[in-house]
Amino acid sequence: MDYYPESVIRLINEIARLPGIGYKSAIKIAYNLIEMSEPEVVKLAKSMVEMKKKVHYCRQCHHLTEDELCSICASDKRDRSIICVVDTPRDLIAIEKTREFHGLYHVLHGRISPLDGVRPQDLTIASLEKRLAGGEVKEMILANSPTLEGESTAVYLSKTMHGKVDKITRIAHGVPIGGDLEFADEITLLKAMEGRHDY
Amino acid sequence: MDYYPESVIRLINEIARLPGIGYKSAIKIAYNLIEMSEPEVVKLAKSMVEMKKKVHYCRQCHHLTEDELCSICASDKRDRSIICVVDTPRDLIAIEKTREFHGLYHVLHGRISPLDGVRPQDLTIASLEKRLAGGEVKEMILANSPTLEGESTAVYLSKTMHGKVDKITRIAHGVPIGGDLEFADEITLLKAMEGRHDY
Repeated sequence: MDYYPESVIRLINEIARLPGIGYKSAIKIAYNLIEMSEPEVVKLAKSMVEMKKKVHYCRQCHHLTEDELCSICASDKRDRSIICVVDTPRDLIAIEKTREFHGLYHVLHGRISPLDGVRPQDLTIASLEKRLAGGEVKEMILANSPTLEGESTAVYLSKTMHGKVDKITRIAHGVPIGGDLEFADEITLLKAMEGRHDY
Repeated sequence: MDYYPESVIRLINEIARLPGIGYKSAIKIAYNLIEMSEPEVVKLAKSMVEMKKKVHYCRQCHHLTEDELCSICASDKRDRSIICVVDTPRDLIAIEKTREFHGLYHVLHGRISPLDGVRPQDLTIASLEKRLAGGEVKEMILANSPTLEGESTAVYLSKTMHGKVDKITRIAHGVPIGGDLEFADEITLLKAMEGRHDY
């Protein structure tokens, strides 16, 4: 590591500390910055700090926002009787992009994972419980990711929220549209067969 | 894109402008920054700007440095009669890590590529010519990448520098150590066969 000037080493180390960014990616990003002009780097650095100062989580659903409520919770066009529970803001945005869901969301900011030390109380579950207690919500859709941790979280929520909301549903598992059936894994195919419907 | 708060959109767009970083990676990095504490983001932003202010290219070999000469050019332990020409600082560091080369380097900062609009005069070739004219250099090793553009650059250099230095050599092509022979491509295997030596 003494191959780089000191300020480059320091920057690479700081970038590599970002979760999900490995050492090689950090070096790549550092090189990109070296090749940019100084005003460009200053502009990027300012954008980072400005974003960090402005953005926080929505008081109600915990999605990203610069205001007290996110644009979805603040909208009067959304159906307040249905809440879609997602693991992350990225999942929320994936569903928003379908333009077919018009209810509200609840972002857990993680999945229950004892191995990674993520317990139910580390997620926004207490806040979800309070929202359901309001009585306005009729259906809670569990849109947790179809991974081991996502399924565990969905199971945990369906058990603890049982009786606190009229209807609890889980998004369907099956073969993804546009995918070749032969490449689907066995469990997905099994779920797709189990979930078959009249056509 | 109106799914994100404005300051997040602005940041994602700026990160995505970095060469080699796609839109999805930019979103991932933005999320990382959102999850960091404000002091951490401020620290990272400062490191970026500080690195950019301090780091520039070595006056002699064009490697990264915070001084006038890089640590390699400034060292009195290096053999000044041999120059290894590389495309990028990353290639230089890859060779340094072998700890077997004790000469100097020359970083071209790119490869000749008419398709990408990179011409010989866009690289540090004039500066290389000046170094050879000094008369101290006896051998120039062409360590350009074994890609189409790297080979073109090596060919261009061997032609234009012919007669200006006693010896011009090219690094060997062959099968990578530790790689399974069956996975080597045909051209690499052909080069490995051509370059075979007594054993």
